[in-house]
Amino acid sequence: MASDDVPATGSTFDDPVYRTGVTELIGILCYGEISATERLAEDATMAPDLATKAEILAMAAAEWDHFEKLRERLAGLVDEPYPFIEQFAPIFDRFHAQTSPSDWLEGLVKAYVGDGLAADFYREIAAFLDSDTRELVLETLSGTGHSDFVVDAVRGAIAAEPRVGGRLALWGRRLMGEALSQAQMVVAERDALSAVMVGGIDHPGLDLAGIGRMFARITESHAARMDKLGLDA
Amino acid sequence: MASDDVPATGSTFDDPVYRTGVTELIGILCYGEISATERLAEDATMAPDLATKAEILAMAAAEWDHFEKLRERLAGLVDEPYPFIEQFAPIFDRFHAQTSPSDWLEGLVKAYVGDGLAADFYREIAAFLDSDTRELVLETLSGTGHSDFVVDAVRGAIAAEPRVGGRLALWGRRLMGEALSQAQMVVAERDALSAVMVGGIDHPGLDLAGIGRMFARITESHAARMDKLGLDA
Repeated sequence: MASDDVPATGSTFDDPVYRTGVTELIGILCYGEISATERLAEDATMAPDLATKAEILAMAAAEWDHFEKLRERLAGLVDEPYPFIEQFAPIFDRFHAQTSPSDWLEGLVKAYVGDGLAADFYREIAAFLDSDTRELVLETLSGTGHSDFVVDAVRGAIAAEPRVGGRLALWGRRLMGEALSQAQMVVAERDALSAVMVGGIDHPGLDLAGIGRMFARITESHAARMDKLGLDA
Repeated sequence: MASDDVPATGSTFDDPVYRTGVTELIGILCYGEISATERLAEDATMAPDLATKAEILAMAAAEWDHFEKLRERLAGLVDEPYPFIEQFAPIFDRFHAQTSPSDWLEGLVKAYVGDGLAADFYREIAAFLDSDTRELVLETLSGTGHSDFVVDAVRGAIAAEPRVGGRLALWGRRLMGEALSQAQMVVAERDALSAVMVGGIDHPGLDLAGIGRMFARITESHAARMDKLGLDA
């Protein structure tokens, strides 16, 4: 949790910069959920058996539920949710173009690591939000409870063919690098969104040391996930 | 409704043939929902804009909800639901192999017509089931409420380019022909399942005239759907 760095403040929608930043954040989360739903559905077509396919489709359905909650909120903030959401497509399209899985195992690792990283980012950002928005964001990043089977599948594949572990470890590092690179571009491109995190006159935000600690936390969680999969981070 | 032909009877799971037939039916419905979820997710990737993509993904998510309800029931009837469900894959794989849409509009018409036909078949079969199973089947075929936009999209495309109407009308006829052909193969291959419909000593079923009336009802509903899309049946 980021709560030791930044106590949640009384920032409200009266502040136009805050409002813009939060609206952008929800738009980004919306596109992220659509994108995750689609990628998981695509992964499902590669599943080796029907039970595994069902696990992946259940993850896709959970992401879709999250999307619907976020879209409902966004509809109270902008007149036309879909064109608003669509502007964030390039962020995710760039990420996916750079991290297209070459097989089923890479797809599984991407779903697991990507879902975890996204949850970490959003949990960090949640600390800067008003309580309603924070609750929504935390609710939509709650683990879907379907990804334990990824751990079994990846560990099983490495046990059967140890060479696979080296390849997937490289893959995990690439996913992390691309995710950080995209996150950094978003913050650089979106002044209002970064203002939510950096703070303003009426609410505290992150200083440079705080940003450093945030990235340290995200990196540690990533390493813990890789370890759980049996992969070197 | 088929209720004028066959009153629901007191058939129970004590009758092993009935039990086998109903278990097979639920297995078929399960695979059908998985298959529909996957096809819709694939269609969504071709959507011309994000709002349309979201409509299609919402349909996919609704099919997935249906699957989860059916799987839960199946888990009370067989020890290993997934291998049981998987045996019915060829039915749907054959249908989809014969009706692979060549573009977005064919995909939309297939989703709309296919969903409607499936609902018609299952509603007819529901009339022969015990009340618990009937309720489950009727619940999972209830319209997802997301397909009105298909009517607008197809009518819009025909208005813009009338030639499209002829091509899609042929396509609709092909979908109907393949669906009937697969349904007939299922009944021919599955004795217990067809026994549920044809009846036994302790419960009435369909005679030849009843089967004829059933197909007449299904054909009429199909024609009504084609008409709603602006297509000749």
